[in-house]
Amino acid sequence: MQVLKVRSRQREELVEITDRVKQALEDSGEQEGVLVLYVQHTTAGLTVNENADPDVPRDMLHLLRTVIPQHGMGFRHGEENSDAHIKATLVGSSVTIPFHEGKLLLGRWQGVFLCEFDGGRERQVIMIVK
Amino acid sequence: MQVLKVRSRQREELVEITDRVKQALEDSGEQEGVLVLYVQHTTAGLTVNENADPDVPRDMLHLLRTVIPQHGMGFRHGEENSDAHIKATLVGSSVTIPFHEGKLLLGRWQGVFLCEFDGGRERQVIMIVK
Amino acid sequence: MQVLKVRSRQREELVEITDRVKQALEDSGEQEGVLVLYVQHTTAGLTVNENADPDVPRDMLHLLRTVIPQHGMGFRHGEENSDAHIKATLVGSSVTIPFHEGKLLLGRWQGVFLCEFDGGRERQVIMIVK
Repeated sequence: MQVLKVRSRQREELVEITDRVKQALEDSGEQEGVLVLYVQHTTAGLTVNENADPDVPRDMLHLLRTVIPQHGMGFRHGEENSDAHIKATLVGSSVTIPFHEGKLLLGRWQGVFLCEFDGGRERQVIMIVK
Repeated sequence: MQVLKVRSRQREELVEITDRVKQALEDSGEQEGVLVLYVQHTTAGLTVNENADPDVPRDMLHLLRTVIPQHGMGFRHGEENSDAHIKATLVGSSVTIPFHEGKLLLGRWQGVFLCEFDGGRERQVIMIVK
Repeated sequence: MQVLKVRSRQREELVEITDRVKQALEDSGEQEGVLVLYVQHTTAGLTVNENADPDVPRDMLHLLRTVIPQHGMGFRHGEENSDAHIKATLVGSSVTIPFHEGKLLLGRWQGVFLCEFDGGRERQVIMIVK
């Protein structure tokens, strides 16, 4: 088990952690199996998506903000971050990625992102290889 | 492998199962690994989110109902529960949570919920630890 | 580890792969554990949902297209497929399904689908059993 601390700077932000995850897998010495990342928070998620063009994360946050606005929806939760809780559940709190011969089997355009929906904060991600 | 029977009472409801999952992990005697929960239904899902304020689940169901209404969308599926199928896919049919020294690594505010979108019913959740 | 090649024919399509996944599990000879499927693309996902009535996948794609339209949202990503990236993240890049005595523990109405959001193309799905 490893723990990754991930720092976000804005309320909504996709923070790429691909290189850190690859390094952590290498450090584990494991060769075959699946890598699980799990975020220990209720207003952040994890996803795999394109890491080449920064407009992809930008468009994703823009769409989610449009469909699930922070205000004006009649939300009752007093923290004014119900939108962030909902986005976290839709994106999901974990990602599972296979690896082979010690290498993460990401596709050519895939990167791993912490999805921050109520930052900036330090977030904690647990990594397990099996 | 263990099977959890979960009873919902309303058409849409987040039923917390955290304590039952913790107990089932303890019963398994496993100390290190990941716990997988899987729901064997197509109109219910599983998620991890805040279990302190009941307004968080309430706001989540409210938003999903607004964006994915049961009626008026031109759905063709004759059961009149296409909204429930779609919500189930967006939330997901499984959650994967790491554990360490026999304890589930949930964050401070995290609980585990069965997401009922077409109840009330009895639902079946499979639990595996690896 | 096995690799499944999946062919889609339309821009948006749910391609059922249940039988191929069951066969691949049988070929593995494994009896107890979890099966992980992982799609190596950023504009396609994987889900478990109803495979009896084709109107369920149809309604799902219809709703997603309504809420996350390809055009007119102010997307900046030049490939004109930001909608597909977002749908892929919401549906998710992997599914995890338990199996017991060599049989996948799908519920009565559950099938496994590759969710194509920017096809038709050949897609690659990695399968691992643990």
